[in-house]
Amino acid sequence: MTDTNQIITGLSQLVDAGRVLTDADSLKHYGCDWTKKYDPAPLAIVLPKTAEQVQAIVRFANEHQVALVPSGGRTGLSAAAVAANGEVVVAFDLMNKINDFNAMDRTVKCQPGVVTEQLQQFAEQNNLYYPVDFASAGSSQLGGNISTNAGGIKVIRYGMTRDWVKGLKVVTGNGDLLDLNAGLDKNATGYDFRHLFIGAEGTLGFIVEATMKLARTPKNLTVLVLGVPEFRAIMKVLETFQSKIDLTAFEFFSDKAVELVTAHHDVPRPFESATPYYALLELEAATEEVLDEAMALFETCVEQGWVMDGVISQSEAQAAALWRLREGISETIAPFTPYKNDVSVVVSKVPDFLEDIDQIVSSQYPDFEIVWFGHIGDGNLHLNILKPEALSKEEFFKRCEGVNTQVFETVQKYHGSVSAEHGVGMTKKPYLQYTRSALEINYMRAVKQAFDPNNIMNPGKVFDL
Amino acid sequence: MTDTNQIITGLSQLVDAGRVLTDADSLKHYGCDWTKKYDPAPLAIVLPKTAEQVQAIVRFANEHQVALVPSGGRTGLSAAAVAANGEVVVAFDLMNKINDFNAMDRTVKCQPGVVTEQLQQFAEQNNLYYPVDFASAGSSQLGGNISTNAGGIKVIRYGMTRDWVKGLKVVTGNGDLLDLNAGLDKNATGYDFRHLFIGAEGTLGFIVEATMKLARTPKNLTVLVLGVPEFRAIMKVLETFQSKIDLTAFEFFSDKAVELVTAHHDVPRPFESATPYYALLELEAATEEVLDEAMALFETCVEQGWVMDGVISQSEAQAAALWRLREGISETIAPFTPYKNDVSVVVSKVPDFLEDIDQIVSSQYPDFEIVWFGHIGDGNLHLNILKPEALSKEEFFKRCEGVNTQVFETVQKYHGSVSAEHGVGMTKKPYLQYTRSALEINYMRAVKQAFDPNNIMNPGKVFDL
Repeated sequence: MTDTNQIITGLSQLVDAGRVLTDADSLKHYGCDWTKKYDPAPLAIVLPKTAEQVQAIVRFANEHQVALVPSGGRTGLSAAAVAANGEVVVAFDLMNKINDFNAMDRTVKCQPGVVTEQLQQFAEQNNLYYPVDFASAGSSQLGGNISTNAGGIKVIRYGMTRDWVKGLKVVTGNGDLLDLNAGLDKNATGYDFRHLFIGAEGTLGFIVEATMKLARTPKNLTVLVLGVPEFRAIMKVLETFQSKIDLTAFEFFSDKAVELVTAHHDVPRPFESATPYYALLELEAATEEVLDEAMALFETCVEQGWVMDGVISQSEAQAAALWRLREGISETIAPFTPYKNDVSVVVSKVPDFLEDIDQIVSSQYPDFEIVWFGHIGDGNLHLNILKPEALSKEEFFKRCEGVNTQVFETVQKYHGSVSAEHGVGMTKKPYLQYTRSALEINYMRAVKQAFDPNNIMNPGKVFDL
Repeated sequence: MTDTNQIITGLSQLVDAGRVLTDADSLKHYGCDWTKKYDPAPLAIVLPKTAEQVQAIVRFANEHQVALVPSGGRTGLSAAAVAANGEVVVAFDLMNKINDFNAMDRTVKCQPGVVTEQLQQFAEQNNLYYPVDFASAGSSQLGGNISTNAGGIKVIRYGMTRDWVKGLKVVTGNGDLLDLNAGLDKNATGYDFRHLFIGAEGTLGFIVEATMKLARTPKNLTVLVLGVPEFRAIMKVLETFQSKIDLTAFEFFSDKAVELVTAHHDVPRPFESATPYYALLELEAATEEVLDEAMALFETCVEQGWVMDGVISQSEAQAAALWRLREGISETIAPFTPYKNDVSVVVSKVPDFLEDIDQIVSSQYPDFEIVWFGHIGDGNLHLNILKPEALSKEEFFKRCEGVNTQVFETVQKYHGSVSAEHGVGMTKKPYLQYTRSALEINYMRAVKQAFDPNNIMNPGKVFDL
């Protein structure tokens, strides 16, 4: 092990002047993500500007056995970008250019530090659409989105981040630069390593460029919010609409969520009557005929008793207002110190799964209040447990860990995922085996060995060696 | 090395009675695919009925150092399923059940021996749609489709086979059974090995079950065939239509192809005038408004001089007839002993690329006649060189190898793929380095080592160790 000063001096020779930071503020700022569970303790922050500088850093790290942690927008919720053990943080803030837009191919080459919203706006300026969207789009970076295969609110129609990556340039743990897939739509030439790096949370290598696909801009996005008396009816609504229309979103939330959002924000209830659950549907009303179809489907759902009341947006502004009912939830519950879980099962199992979890929590933690919401069209539920006022934060989190075990045992019973779209990082690492078998985790170790034999790329994340 | 009789006796104990075949006809039948370039020479054919039997075979093969070749519909065009070196062929014909259809999730669990058309028909019977379609759908098996990430004629809208695989059960080269992704839409728990096995041509393990997603049935699929005076105008037509309508197909073919198809089959020309190129567009005309839009776009293309003439289908029968112009090509040129290449570049580079290739062939092989067609919306071109009558087959193939080198050098110059959708197998193995770097191929070797340390799974395919 080389000493700290030697490492800092060595790194300084690899990047532009002033791009190695060691002041306390920078160490704190770059050393953690949104989880705030771990104390940031990096050795230094290094800000490369080119792929070659990233390669030099990785080679240096191999030589001196220095652990590297990649850092993007640090909006992660699983501590995958946390440096709590004297690692060197490689921050991609200076690699934030959008290059080589091609209108015919609908592709752009993005450096890893491009912010999600920056790409969304770039697409818009070019009359196209980048459809991956979620709450942290204003600060999350593309390198992080790809490394966690970020999802969000449009997955039902547009898929995950994975589906928009046409090519990747990566620096492996050996310091090799690989150019994966070169933006091709069709390329049947052996293992598609692009897909291996997507979702790998920086444990195999770091992304230094991504060729992203853009979509046609959707026409006249229209939002319906429907009041649903019982949870199982939501699934009927989903099935009914999906059989005729390609929805761009299908979200749900409980009346508890609506109660909180409308009480704390200038957001009105969608309609007068309150129902236990709400479904938010978005669709591309390209023609009058689609709107007529949507209205007919709505009426079918009312006739069947699946829906009690509903509202449909008449303008973009109204659509945005209805979205606030859903998008305001996270912000509204934040002061209640929510304990969050991000789980998924196949869509058809959602009602049984949710019932099981509800029963566990209500019987064993009767003082806990739960706010459910999520991307139900993808089987993805966000379970939020609110802290009872009387309970200390420490005691609350400790009791939540007890809930965790039972929730994840239920996830396992339903062959679901302990992390639908938030990744594993450090916070979900102890629970990985509820979704992935010990055999599979061993193969992950073997694959990491192939790309990062000295275990310098984000060590201790996802799994332990 | 155990002797042949011992191997056959040993295998016989692992599968049902009579499921190890060693007669000459079976060895010939199961030992090759559509390439016919290699002489089949397998040691035996074994037909498992369950995943457990596949595991037993793989473990036995490890113990006795026997090479295994997976065998599906054997419709491959790259010799990935050819057993030319005394391997044991594992044929999946008896594992051909479709199980556990779930209407809400729109998924089915398929055994690897399910025939593509069988899945298409199953979907249709359940008012759904399996959108991956290509010429060999009547005999190709799903395990093979997945192992080569099959594409076909609907990729522009529906993507590759990869995009319809929600879960995979595989037996690795170690004989381990892995259950990958369990059909989930969202699952951010580390490396997604499902995507590693897709397109791996059986070199990491064998697929024993796939959870496939089905789509909503498209409404009123309507076909346009447009006559285009020069190749670059085809790209303008593509861009014009794509900006407004999500096409389900965009194919092209040359007048030479139309000439051959109409001369040899009961297929009329699409319209009286002949143009050098034709584009075939398919779209979902769900409403009158979409049809009106398509007609307006067609008129724009005519006004701009990009299109000389055109026809639009008025019925399903007419749509099918227009498709025959494109689908009849392969069959029609078969008697001319075509030398086929299946290459791709990004869509915007197609015109320059095609011009370069045309020039190489016309200047250096002036006696060769070329038929171009392909999935141009995906940048995928099928280059077919017809054998001049005067040339012997041997001489013709030898000269084609010369063409190959120049074609693949041009592919490399354009950062394209030497195999867009046909895989690598043995026929493209010598050319892999034109698309994948030596570094990447080395990582492929390392990953294979992790899943198949004794190199028993389809050895000698894709790359050499």
